[in-house]
Amino acid sequence: MPLILEGIVTTHSSEGELNIAPMGPIVDESMTWLLLRPFQSSTTYRNLKATGVGVLHVIDDVLLIAQAALGQVDPPPATQLAVAIPGTVLSSTARWYEFRVDTLDDSTPRTEIRCRVVHAGRQRDLFGFHRARHAVLEATILATRCHLIVEADLRRQLADLQVIVEKTAGPREAAAFAYVQQQVNAAYGDRIVVDC
Amino acid sequence: MPLILEGIVTTHSSEGELNIAPMGPIVDESMTWLLLRPFQSSTTYRNLKATGVGVLHVIDDVLLIAQAALGQVDPPPATQLAVAIPGTVLSSTARWYEFRVDTLDDSTPRTEIRCRVVHAGRQRDLFGFHRARHAVLEATILATRCHLIVEADLRRQLADLQVIVEKTAGPREAAAFAYVQQQVNAAYGDRIVVDC
Repeated sequence: MPLILEGIVTTHSSEGELNIAPMGPIVDESMTWLLLRPFQSSTTYRNLKATGVGVLHVIDDVLLIAQAALGQVDPPPATQLAVAIPGTVLSSTARWYEFRVDTLDDSTPRTEIRCRVVHAGRQRDLFGFHRARHAVLEATILATRCHLIVEADLRRQLADLQVIVEKTAGPREAAAFAYVQQQVNAAYGDRIVVDC
Repeated sequence: MPLILEGIVTTHSSEGELNIAPMGPIVDESMTWLLLRPFQSSTTYRNLKATGVGVLHVIDDVLLIAQAALGQVDPPPATQLAVAIPGTVLSSTARWYEFRVDTLDDSTPRTEIRCRVVHAGRQRDLFGFHRARHAVLEATILATRCHLIVEADLRRQLADLQVIVEKTAGPREAAAFAYVQQQVNAAYGDRIVVDC
């Protein structure tokens, strides 16, 4: 049964530059294949078209996800070499899946890239359901859509998520949420809006 | 560093009846202890006071969580005997932590029960971030608060969550969300309200 997994994909450009991008590939519980659907404007698309390899990470570090989605991962994350492909693994990941592109259909703006997993690695268990982490993930997704969503509506949804963060966040989730809020303010030009 | 883990706790009454309850204990990454804070009106509180043992489950089955929170788990879940205590393990769990109560402070309505883990079991990896699963978890928490939240506000939040579910749910998450909606309708007496 297909499922959408929110993870992080690392790729390299043909010049070797590392790219770290949140992605929601379609997978199944077997984790032997994945279907990526990046926009053709994305670096992940260009890199996969050029090199044909990448690494999917299953992580629960929402500060890393927020930074990768909305800016730069700061400080640069610890990494290690992938095992079966010329690629990069984020050292803090719980699990990772090194993959090769099987087919790439870019006849539509949202490319379908079918990949097969050629090596799977595991370092630790995921923590489990953590409300603040998921609230930060949703806030991050909202923040990537500032250009598509009416500001008042986005800020209302962000305010709902903030309630969850205030109840259940540790320091890392709190820092990640503050980062997302900062990026939203920047996207809307720092206008001050009263949350309803 | 303390974290709040949303899981499921099984306990038994002194007559041996099984209780399955969603709980958000405070834990840390070591998972060697947990702090439960059940209300004194809860079955989990009564059972832990009577027997002093229970099992914390780390799971990603949101239909089970929704049913345990809002009604009955149907059909009754497959279970197995706990290893180190007289207790019950839900067979579908990813991991579980059998615990004994160390101290129980019931001088306030929200009891603080400090427990130590005496056996940890592991069956499989958790899937990873899945937006619909977390949306169902949040919807379930909302549904437990129908008596505290203004209906229009709750339904507005539920409508936001429904958008996520419609985008990312598999059949089990969709069934779980429908179940939560049904319970919310029942709680508000099946009055029909237009979502704003």
